[in-house]
Amino acid sequence: MPARATMPDLQPLADGAVSRYEIESCSRRFLKGYSHFILQTPLWKLPGRALGLECAEVWLKLEHLQTGGSFKARGMLNRLLSNPIPASGVIVASGGNAGIATAAAARELGVPCEVFVPEISSPAKRARLAALGATVVVGGAAYSDALQACLSRQQHTGALLTHAYDQPEVLVGAGTLALEIEQQGGLPDAVLVSVGGGGLLGGIACWFASRSRVVALEPELAPTLFRAREAGRPVDVSVGGLAADSLGAKRIGALAWQQAEARVREALLVTDEAIREAQLFLWRQFKLAVEPAAALPLAALRSGACTTRADEKVCLIVCGANLDPASLA
Amino acid sequence: MPARATMPDLQPLADGAVSRYEIESCSRRFLKGYSHFILQTPLWKLPGRALGLECAEVWLKLEHLQTGGSFKARGMLNRLLSNPIPASGVIVASGGNAGIATAAAARELGVPCEVFVPEISSPAKRARLAALGATVVVGGAAYSDALQACLSRQQHTGALLTHAYDQPEVLVGAGTLALEIEQQGGLPDAVLVSVGGGGLLGGIACWFASRSRVVALEPELAPTLFRAREAGRPVDVSVGGLAADSLGAKRIGALAWQQAEARVREALLVTDEAIREAQLFLWRQFKLAVEPAAALPLAALRSGACTTRADEKVCLIVCGANLDPASLA
Repeated sequence: MPARATMPDLQPLADGAVSRYEIESCSRRFLKGYSHFILQTPLWKLPGRALGLECAEVWLKLEHLQTGGSFKARGMLNRLLSNPIPASGVIVASGGNAGIATAAAARELGVPCEVFVPEISSPAKRARLAALGATVVVGGAAYSDALQACLSRQQHTGALLTHAYDQPEVLVGAGTLALEIEQQGGLPDAVLVSVGGGGLLGGIACWFASRSRVVALEPELAPTLFRAREAGRPVDVSVGGLAADSLGAKRIGALAWQQAEARVREALLVTDEAIREAQLFLWRQFKLAVEPAAALPLAALRSGACTTRADEKVCLIVCGANLDPASLA
Repeated sequence: MPARATMPDLQPLADGAVSRYEIESCSRRFLKGYSHFILQTPLWKLPGRALGLECAEVWLKLEHLQTGGSFKARGMLNRLLSNPIPASGVIVASGGNAGIATAAAARELGVPCEVFVPEISSPAKRARLAALGATVVVGGAAYSDALQACLSRQQHTGALLTHAYDQPEVLVGAGTLALEIEQQGGLPDAVLVSVGGGGLLGGIACWFASRSRVVALEPELAPTLFRAREAGRPVDVSVGGLAADSLGAKRIGALAWQQAEARVREALLVTDEAIREAQLFLWRQFKLAVEPAAALPLAALRSGACTTRADEKVCLIVCGANLDPASLA
């Protein structure tokens, strides 16, 4: 049941723009000027027994309470702070958390923002983007159409493009989440992270490197890293299932792949059934309202897909809360 | 708009069963044997600006994440631990948080529990109590009928009775929440607390005494402390409005009244409109799903009913999350 892709040996990583040094600099910048926007989210330490688990401690990093309802605000603000922003502002193709985070970061900095969404995106999401001050453009039937329309528009306006996961600044921003965990609670023995395009995994793996065991988790129905490991390189996969809304990237990002090859030994798959069970457990037992992607780490533990030792301190990244609350009723 | 009842001078409090000493002992007992049940909930420190407020820091004590979805587990477990429990177990009349907390505490200790609810209680709440292992008894049309039926039954069985707010062990248990805040974050300048029967206020006022400014907050439509201050003694009031489900006591408890007289200078009223606004703000901005009573402290600040100085650290007790999540959609 706990499916495992081939484990590459941990390799040294070439120096690049994604580094612990960059993550530290970014974190200092957030703290100095943007502590009202990039929030230091709580790290909730619980005895494993409180969650029905065998491990000594479970640390829940409540990053779903972050501005915009997910960790993505970290990467998007860093992207915007690290580049000159033309008068035409910023531009992104996304109907989900990356779009919300880009729009929120643009509003924080007082620059214009265009968000390209597919026709299938819900009116509620479009309204949320508009409420953040973004110009919402419906760019075709599917996400790939919206992306194409976005890229054409960017060629025309010269706006700064943000990518949901495959830009160095985005990984570095996500890495500040890992630094914050260490500042708040010390080093955990293991860190469990959900993977879509891998922006979060890349930043977290870069920060912890070999100091904590970083475990990558994907839904069975959206296995971008798992299939890449089988193929030995990033490949397109078909994605679907419960968490496709936020973990719906079709291919692991090149930067995340590089980090994962160097620093992540375990890439595990979790069933949609286990994800839904963990999501409802988090609501009923702890009144945490989280999206399916954020329940993946707990699902991996509760379903047995990921195993821990009795003396371990295991940190679960609770990464987002963009859900319809009625889905918890 | 910020209505204020007469402020009594702070009076010395006669020694009694509700004391800082009792609170410390209770907290040690929780930590030693029940840390998987009475959870140390996060204290989330935010810059005031993150909530659109003038004060330097807002500390959100996320007690709605407590076992059973409210602070009440602290008082109920303490009540059960502090008394011999007969073979007939424990008994309570409540359709709300006190019933859930009593049932959860009884299950934790492995003793039987009977909960008397009125006919108007929802099937969902009865199912939740039953899922916690309690025997649910419908005891008449209104709460007062259920209470009467509960007291008759208690006379017959000799079960240990828990009261939603007016027992010393219940105030002492609630006081451990205040101790925990001080352990986690030091002394705040002000602590904002919602009041129904006053169990939470009594425990918190006892712990902080004159060291922090404790502000008591009530909905305009459920003003038990406010009216008691006007009358100079606890009086029955009619209660209704948004938060009546959890702040629906008809009269401030005698023990809470004693603590409030001695230690609480400010008792303020907040409109239902402000409460609902704050509840939705906490969800939309911070993904905190809380019941109306838990939004009262933020509502007092955002509506201007309670004012703070620019340099203050203000702690808001987010006391419960027993709500239908669909009500946030």
